[in-house]
Amino acid sequence: MAAVSTEESVVRDGEPADTAPASDQMTLAGALQAELFRRSAMLATAESLTGGRLGDVLSAAPGASDTYVGGVVSYATDVKQKVLGVSEETVETHGVVSAECAEEMATGVRHLMSADYAVSTTGVAGPATQEGKPVGLVYIGVASPDGVRSRRFDFDGDRAEIREKVVKAAIDLVLETVTGAA
Amino acid sequence: MAAVSTEESVVRDGEPADTAPASDQMTLAGALQAELFRRSAMLATAESLTGGRLGDVLSAAPGASDTYVGGVVSYATDVKQKVLGVSEETVETHGVVSAECAEEMATGVRHLMSADYAVSTTGVAGPATQEGKPVGLVYIGVASPDGVRSRRFDFDGDRAEIREKVVKAAIDLVLETVTGAA
Repeated sequence: MAAVSTEESVVRDGEPADTAPASDQMTLAGALQAELFRRSAMLATAESLTGGRLGDVLSAAPGASDTYVGGVVSYATDVKQKVLGVSEETVETHGVVSAECAEEMATGVRHLMSADYAVSTTGVAGPATQEGKPVGLVYIGVASPDGVRSRRFDFDGDRAEIREKVVKAAIDLVLETVTGAA
Repeated sequence: MAAVSTEESVVRDGEPADTAPASDQMTLAGALQAELFRRSAMLATAESLTGGRLGDVLSAAPGASDTYVGGVVSYATDVKQKVLGVSEETVETHGVVSAECAEEMATGVRHLMSADYAVSTTGVAGPATQEGKPVGLVYIGVASPDGVRSRRFDFDGDRAEIREKVVKAAIDLVLETVTGAA
């Protein structure tokens, strides 16, 4: 399973800061669950800056256990390495806010949980910068039977808004991968 | 580290169903973070029916990484067993909605993530019953340097309300353990 691509595109979010689009997220999560269910496929998550919010949204609807196996909240770097298998080299060379880390997190949780698809989030929620990287810089990784890829985002907003946007983008990216629209 | 107690009390929630007490949760999470910080202690989570919501609340505030290491969303039974080390015997004899499972989840994630404290949630969010157990039946486990214990709850409400109440009760129970008020 080779890496398909890294940092495949840069999406700059130029929208004004808005409130958490909770119902949008649920609609999107429902669409993803339907696509996974049609394929008898299971999804796992590996979350850093979203801290469990992505799993929360994916498991909010009844029947979630048909398509969502679970995930790891790897808030600490140590958890990323010891539980998900992110390499020392990636942490030291690229940092945890990187495409490499996002891809290793997704690959790691996919194997750990024997899932068909896995999605990961890593980035700077703020208010402080991290690794000298700006607030809003986020990488989302998706691992599938075909390989692993990631996408970079530069989100606007405060901590809560950024986390909400990451959840929506993560569901979007895995939906795109599952349906083959990527 | 022996089990200190099992099913130590039954708390019946008789309040009318209410909306998600998000600000209450954040206040409680802040109090927990302050107590953990004073003790230089780290917390891990193992979530079943809350699906990541507990980690979300614990990581929502800036500085969360000082006291929250991360967690496992063990939505599938397989993840409870393979990642957290819940025993086959517990699953077969008591089921995943049990004090035994809650305690093994908390102990498992505490070791997996080298945390000082760990809290777990398992129960029936609904709308369907599970293992012949009623909607709202929930077990919360807390593992600490002193051992592991759990508490049973019978919550009222719909799926979303039950999940919110479990998050609040989980933070409450670990706060009680950390401060030695238990």
